Amino acid sequence: MILINGKKADQISARDRGLHYGDGLFETIAVIEGEAVFWERHLQRLEKGCQRLSLPFPDPALLQREAQSLIKNEPRAVLKLIISRGEGGRGYAYPEPTRSTRLLMPYLWPDYPIQNWRQGVQVRFCDTRLARQPQLAGLKHLNRLEQVLARNEWRDANIAEGLMCDENGNVIEGTLSNLFMLHNGVLHTPDLSQCGVAGIMRERILELAHRQGIRIEIDNITKAQLLAADEVFLSNSLIGLWPVNSLQGRNFKIGNITRSLQNLINQDYPLIHV
Amino acid sequence: MILINGKKADQISARDRGLHYGDGLFETIAVIEGEAVFWERHLQRLEKGCQRLSLPFPDPALLQREAQSLIKNEPRAVLKLIISRGEGGRGYAYPEPTRSTRLLMPYLWPDYPIQNWRQGVQVRFCDTRLARQPQLAGLKHLNRLEQVLARNEWRDANIAEGLMCDENGNVIEGTLSNLFMLHNGVLHTPDLSQCGVAGIMRERILELAHRQGIRIEIDNITKAQLLAADEVFLSNSLIGLWPVNSLQGRNFKIGNITRSLQNLINQDYPLIHV
Repeated sequence: MILINGKKADQISARDRGLHYGDGLFETIAVIEGEAVFWERHLQRLEKGCQRLSLPFPDPALLQREAQSLIKNEPRAVLKLIISRGEGGRGYAYPEPTRSTRLLMPYLWPDYPIQNWRQGVQVRFCDTRLARQPQLAGLKHLNRLEQVLARNEWRDANIAEGLMCDENGNVIEGTLSNLFMLHNGVLHTPDLSQCGVAGIMRERILELAHRQGIRIEIDNITKAQLLAADEVFLSNSLIGLWPVNSLQGRNFKIGNITRSLQNLINQDYPLIHV
Repeated sequence: MILINGKKADQISARDRGLHYGDGLFETIAVIEGEAVFWERHLQRLEKGCQRLSLPFPDPALLQREAQSLIKNEPRAVLKLIISRGEGGRGYAYPEPTRSTRLLMPYLWPDYPIQNWRQGVQVRFCDTRLARQPQLAGLKHLNRLEQVLARNEWRDANIAEGLMCDENGNVIEGTLSNLFMLHNGVLHTPDLSQCGVAGIMRERILELAHRQGIRIEIDNITKAQLLAADEVFLSNSLIGLWPVNSLQGRNFKIGNITRSLQNLINQDYPLIHV
């Protein structure tokens, strides 16, 4: 069942600016035992995104009630939340008044193999680049053609994720995940001020690492630096943390810091059941 | 009346990838006396775009029949055609099989003032930049957040259009139009290999100028070069050609070449009724 502006529906207005321009934002939220994990963080990010796009932010209490009605009996699921700028005429100017559309869609929990957490995943570099656009950087907006093109560069089911670079050759993120590497005990993750999505789980991992006293560097990472890393891992709200065991023929060990962060995530977020 | 996959409808599936990712393309077509102007050109561009995005291209005869059924009695209208990658599950991988969605929507003819053609328009520079993304450059795709942000930088109804630069400061296009300038009798229009939309009317103007023996340069244009131009004009499929009379305080005359191109467009495309 999908809820669109609070009503059960399978369809959305053909005049919605989400369709015409990708004029909106989304969140992908893990549901565990009827609870939307990190709900508050997702809503905060969404609200900030709405501010940056001058998009009316719906009443959070209303969103929570609607989410609860969809997920309360779900042991495991995914909740996707879309906020678009609603219906509009032809043309880019904001409609007056703007009534945003809110769409809540539950999905089945993805059946990722348990080995992805335990033995790590194989990843590749994509040729599709992320364009530098500071006005949209960090946002989880509905303009996702770059990810669509990148994800469809490979069909090999053994490859769990593809990494995308910006036009300068800095590795920024995966098609659906953020990227971390450990080098001499320092945790590095790419700067997202020019492109990329600032993930909820990325933020959580940075908090956990900071509490563990791990030194953190948020900066540019070249392909060569990534290939020379001691440990590499990926994160998002559904996978939590996946170690990377192989990238373009280079093998990585799964070290203590990766495992300890994975265990910490697992405490408030029992994704793995290892 | 809207046609979605050949059926009268006001709504589209909430699972459509056009909504979730902007995974699709569109055309905006002028309708004059029941005819879609430059229909063949629009369809050729759409087909090329579909090839670049690996998007199934619908049967052109079917599209034409559907378009005709919508517009045949319209003296003046706009036909918007959207092709998306259709319904999909969560995730960027192409659905297997992919069934594209085709959406045909008529709109009222916009009531642009006749002075826009006769006396020209006032335009401004936008702060929002166009990101450099050669894989999407030229395409009229559904990822249009940059245009949305740029168009909403101004409210002054006297300003007809905003010009957008790439991150290097080259002027690329307007939010809804292509850009031309004349300098010492040479017609310049920005290179669109890194960003921008390759408009049907831009193509037509280049053809007409070539036939007139006007020298054409497709290259980078800086703000300073544009401000030093002899004549400046804008084009798209609905406006045809609008001379620019003023840009950021600089006034431009409307010269012979601009007027002759405008008259040539008007011959197969009677937009102006001057």
